[in-house]
Amino acid sequence: MQTVWPSYLVRPDPEDPRLTRTIEGRDQTGAPVSVAVTVERPLTLYLNGREIVTMMTIGDHPEELALGYLLNQNMLLPGDTVTAIQHDPELDVVVVRTDRQTDYEEKLKRRTLTSGCAQGTAFGDMMERFAGVVLPAAELRTSWLHQLTRKINTTPSLYLAAGAIHGCVLCRAGDPLVYMEDVGRHNAVDKIAGWMYRHRVDPADKIFYTTGRLTSEMVIKTVQMGIPVLVSRSGFTVWGVELARQAGLTLVGRARGRRFVALAGLERIVHDLDPAAADDEPEAARRKGARDDD
Amino acid sequence: MQTVWPSYLVRPDPEDPRLTRTIEGRDQTGAPVSVAVTVERPLTLYLNGREIVTMMTIGDHPEELALGYLLNQNMLLPGDTVTAIQHDPELDVVVVRTDRQTDYEEKLKRRTLTSGCAQGTAFGDMMERFAGVVLPAAELRTSWLHQLTRKINTTPSLYLAAGAIHGCVLCRAGDPLVYMEDVGRHNAVDKIAGWMYRHRVDPADKIFYTTGRLTSEMVIKTVQMGIPVLVSRSGFTVWGVELARQAGLTLVGRARGRRFVALAGLERIVHDLDPAAADDEPEAARRKGARDDD
Repeated sequence: MQTVWPSYLVRPDPEDPRLTRTIEGRDQTGAPVSVAVTVERPLTLYLNGREIVTMMTIGDHPEELALGYLLNQNMLLPGDTVTAIQHDPELDVVVVRTDRQTDYEEKLKRRTLTSGCAQGTAFGDMMERFAGVVLPAAELRTSWLHQLTRKINTTPSLYLAAGAIHGCVLCRAGDPLVYMEDVGRHNAVDKIAGWMYRHRVDPADKIFYTTGRLTSEMVIKTVQMGIPVLVSRSGFTVWGVELARQAGLTLVGRARGRRFVALAGLERIVHDLDPAAADDEPEAARRKGARDDD
Repeated sequence: MQTVWPSYLVRPDPEDPRLTRTIEGRDQTGAPVSVAVTVERPLTLYLNGREIVTMMTIGDHPEELALGYLLNQNMLLPGDTVTAIQHDPELDVVVVRTDRQTDYEEKLKRRTLTSGCAQGTAFGDMMERFAGVVLPAAELRTSWLHQLTRKINTTPSLYLAAGAIHGCVLCRAGDPLVYMEDVGRHNAVDKIAGWMYRHRVDPADKIFYTTGRLTSEMVIKTVQMGIPVLVSRSGFTVWGVELARQAGLTLVGRARGRRFVALAGLERIVHDLDPAAADDEPEAARRKGARDDD
């Protein structure tokens, strides 16, 4: 049942022994059970010698996580050159150095807690860059949506192995390319942003898929990445929809099997699939994979 | 199908027009659809004249949210007297005043982003109070668990009306008492903590139910509230399990219908229900209510 789709450049490694631990407990009958549980560990991020934040993460792709965090917080700017990234797995530290002198002392004082299972700390000026973005014209075929949800749901992942984890997938047409997971959805998003930055990926023909809800923060981050389409198997918040409409982002939620709801950027959607003729999501995937509310 | 269980002291009000908005979009066939979407709005919290944080919230129970936030951040201490709480719905501001002078300037500089759909900012010294707590002896009957999941799943809620929202429920035996929802799970938890503080509720015979994952932060907050049992329909993280074992908290996850897994505090569990004879969660509730991964 689990196929590794050939399009993946990066995909989850549920076999990595560092990412899960087997824990003994009891079930409803009182019988002993062993369950695989996802590990979370601290990772402290330094930028040019200054401690920025400590994140709780599953710990894979620390360099992409660091870069993506700094990008999405506007602490790493498009014109900056990253001169070094060093990850020390013993100390759980990642250090990013840039050619530009940075001082975010004042910035770090201002804190807005965002909603949802969103990144906890977002700076007020996150909106600054958001306002300037113009998203490219693009196409979203409904046949691609159907392929993407099927491929992502059947890809071996920590989610399927242990649950209680979020996934974000960078896609092109009907192909998932980069699938990152983390306990915190904001980390999974940031790892994708960091990967795109490192590999100088053009966002214009990409689709961003998330297991999590379509909150304001997901919309802001997708727009900041320059990706014109955001898809989720979960639902919406009003602010998320409003920001998507303002930015001209295509916003598709509740995407499961052949079904979905689109609330913004409808002009990019091309209905090339007859939903009545398409397979719906199998019952097993729907239950197992149901992540309505992150 | 939807019963209002008589035990509730506070329960969701999905009919409140401020909490949802109807948004027009299109479905997979291209047909127009109207969907109810949850509203999130900013609420800025001041403590004794100092701005503490801006939270994104659905906006019900702002005073409980403010108190609960301050309690769970250790900014409001057990010995403090709250001399005033004022909520200004025009300005989206809530002001809490205490008899003790407070200065959290230093504290606000230190930030740890917690994992999961957890409150984004947790202070390192959250662990300080955690270490000193001794949780009371208590009983958790499996028949109560079965009743609670059935009652909570069938209670009218924003979740059932609009989805994309978290719920937390303060329970006693098989009865849900206080059911709070919010886009951010951390807000739902904080509203319960604030309600308990206002009503001087004894935590010793209570059960805390959450739709979200059993992360470290959920465990820390439950222990801080002095509640000996934490139940979720979602899964676990390793750090959450470790902290629960350290604190002697009973930790029950994947609680759906007659099934569950317990990974800590097993000595409180009394198996008084034959799981084979009990109803399982109906398929509809399982799909609708499935919130594996927050």
